[in-house]
Amino acid sequence: MNYDQVFDSAIERLHSEGRYRVFIDILRNKGAYPNARCFAGHNGPKPITVWCSNDYLAMGQHPKVIEAMEEALHNVGAGSGGTRNIGGNTHYHIQLEGELADLHGKDGALLFTSGYVSNDATLSTLAKILPGCVIFSDELNHASMIAGIRNSGAEKKVFRHNDVEHLEELLAETDPSVPKLIAFESVYSMDGDVAPIHAICDLAEKYNALTYIDEVHAVGMYGPRGGGITDRDQAAHRIDIIEGTLGKAFGVMGGYIAADTRIIDVIRSYAPGFIFTTSLSPVLVAGVLASVRHLKSSSVEREGQQASAAFLKKSLADAGLPVMPSTTHIVPLMVGDPIRAKKIADILLAEYGVYVQPINYPTVPRGTERLRFTPGPSHTEAMMTELTEALVEIWQRMELELQQAA
Amino acid sequence: MNYDQVFDSAIERLHSEGRYRVFIDILRNKGAYPNARCFAGHNGPKPITVWCSNDYLAMGQHPKVIEAMEEALHNVGAGSGGTRNIGGNTHYHIQLEGELADLHGKDGALLFTSGYVSNDATLSTLAKILPGCVIFSDELNHASMIAGIRNSGAEKKVFRHNDVEHLEELLAETDPSVPKLIAFESVYSMDGDVAPIHAICDLAEKYNALTYIDEVHAVGMYGPRGGGITDRDQAAHRIDIIEGTLGKAFGVMGGYIAADTRIIDVIRSYAPGFIFTTSLSPVLVAGVLASVRHLKSSSVEREGQQASAAFLKKSLADAGLPVMPSTTHIVPLMVGDPIRAKKIADILLAEYGVYVQPINYPTVPRGTERLRFTPGPSHTEAMMTELTEALVEIWQRMELELQQAA
Ligand SMILES: Cc1ncc(COP(=O)(O)O)c(C=O)c1O
Ligand SMILES: Cc1ncc(COP(=O)(O)O)c(C=O)c1O
Repeated sequence: MNYDQVFDSAIERLHSEGRYRVFIDILRNKGAYPNARCFAGHNGPKPITVWCSNDYLAMGQHPKVIEAMEEALHNVGAGSGGTRNIGGNTHYHIQLEGELADLHGKDGALLFTSGYVSNDATLSTLAKILPGCVIFSDELNHASMIAGIRNSGAEKKVFRHNDVEHLEELLAETDPSVPKLIAFESVYSMDGDVAPIHAICDLAEKYNALTYIDEVHAVGMYGPRGGGITDRDQAAHRIDIIEGTLGKAFGVMGGYIAADTRIIDVIRSYAPGFIFTTSLSPVLVAGVLASVRHLKSSSVEREGQQASAAFLKKSLADAGLPVMPSTTHIVPLMVGDPIRAKKIADILLAEYGVYVQPINYPTVPRGTERLRFTPGPSHTEAMMTELTEALVEIWQRMELELQQAA
Repeated sequence: MNYDQVFDSAIERLHSEGRYRVFIDILRNKGAYPNARCFAGHNGPKPITVWCSNDYLAMGQHPKVIEAMEEALHNVGAGSGGTRNIGGNTHYHIQLEGELADLHGKDGALLFTSGYVSNDATLSTLAKILPGCVIFSDELNHASMIAGIRNSGAEKKVFRHNDVEHLEELLAETDPSVPKLIAFESVYSMDGDVAPIHAICDLAEKYNALTYIDEVHAVGMYGPRGGGITDRDQAAHRIDIIEGTLGKAFGVMGGYIAADTRIIDVIRSYAPGFIFTTSLSPVLVAGVLASVRHLKSSSVEREGQQASAAFLKKSLADAGLPVMPSTTHIVPLMVGDPIRAKKIADILLAEYGVYVQPINYPTVPRGTERLRFTPGPSHTEAMMTELTEALVEIWQRMELELQQAA
């Protein structure tokens, strides 16, 4: 057994497919977002504009968030020092869980160290508690949901993306007496489309299935209080478990679920990924508290972000660039090849100071490699016009096709 | 299918076994650790002393750590805003990985959102990359290692705790040509004993197995630079992968592995739990950087902590209390029953303002329920003497046996 050889060939595979990842080394400038500094070259940090952050509303730079974190830092220190059960349960954690439960109109909520862990821990535990459970999973579900489902050991039936007819077919063919769980997302973050939530809930009621929705890219972003698409579409009461992140629109880090207290108590009591880990730093929790509270009453950030996204989509489409048909705040530009996508991103960074990460397999299916832009409330129209011009120039230089403007 | 019934009976099982967990609601006082406030009662916060924190060296309150976090907060903001690959790779992350690699004398290191995730993601990915891999796992390994091993789908052979003869038996009976991985901890945190690292490495060499050590309770705590037991015992170069946490002795939050760059690159490129999640907040990373750097050159905290642990062990033993034979900084007191352990802890909190969490199944085997004390450098001898007196009083009140002083 030659271990080095196995490891080398695993890495070689990535190189040969053009999808070996090099992380770009950046520091954002607080108060000047989307501006940042890039450490990639040899001549010291270089100013860039970030176009692919999931800190969609720039809440990670909001004075209320920074202030709350600073206060907690001075009040209680850096880390929690323990698991939730052993010394790591602070008053901040309890307050935030209350705030998140309220955000989604649920009785309870539970914090995890990340959105990834909340999906993995909740799905795997839930399906283990329900003997014989069958999980119905949208084919484009995020890696963390796939991990949780696989780790549960439950039977999985995959339905075609957002296809309720296919979902019904699978539900109808399944033994009516076994527990069922439908797992899906609200906003699919790489395409920017939205699930037919009410139609899925209709099926869940008809076939007595539990519903689990990942609102990671929607919490803070949609609905009058930022409760996500289920808030906007008044569907939260029809969903058993709403899962979200604290690291994207809320601007900090962490994850959670909101549900009725019975389900919360089960996950809290049985999920190893919740139990056996140091709890979120109270500094982070304090920041999120401020962020969630702010976005419950302020819609300025959401509106600014939506306006930016609409402007950029139109600007790209008008120039004939292959912008994908997103109905949300996400602006993906189809390239369709990993090497070409990386080349475009490299030119943007080197010549235009534009940072956008090429998205490749396994994040998206092979052949659908793309650039994914997430303009925020502080990306100006001038910046977006410049970006479009840069892309047109690169498209022409690389002899790629520009569509006739619609 | 009645879902509520299934959930209710899952919770009922915990109540009937006396191991339903109620989280105590506390806030530590920065600068005054181990003092804290407890929100449990109805008369507002009550002052308590924390005796079960894993912030072993009180680094979570260290001025250098607080200052570094404050600076990062003002410099770059609250969260990273993305995964390591998509916008969430900051200069702090790269610097910390360099610092941790150096700490363990390895070429590379990789950050995760927690120690739990580092174990789960690394072990599951490693064993998937090595076709037919057999994992040899100490029977007392932590839940996060068990999760990673289970999630890898690899064959697992469990060896009796710290028993190298049993380990050799299992190695010898396994096909010499298949990949092998020995996974164990250095300090076992609930008993306070230490693995025979060199003997295990001897076997790994003899049978061509990779070695994976969890140093979660040892990093920062042992060795001239705080590199853990492998640093103290000069064994780091014999171990393929060293895993640690940033949330215990380093006082903040997060996890990591250190290894040669080839292994780091494989995990970085293939582990979903590393790839598909928002990276650690740069504020946390900056705090850890300060903490690791400080503990590389300062041994005052380690020495103070060791002195406290030695004093408390002697004090408890002299009073005839059933302190377990720990050889490390952990001071476990055997109770052997979950309901009794909880009762003792409740009295300590209510009457003595002493917070120590009773440890029950599944954290420790049934019938070995215990109280686990982690005195730090700032627990004074007077506090420890008072604690011993309180315990003796409770032992007598509950008519429990006190041993004849040795
Ligand atoms: C749909 C979806 N769910 C879950 C996650 C994980 O959330 P977190 O970054 O908080 O781990 C992500 C991305 O990171 C995501 O895109
Ligand atoms: C042995 C061991 N490994 C790993 C972990 C997980 O580390 P973290 O708290 O950083 O998730 C813990 C405890 O939390 C532990 O005790």
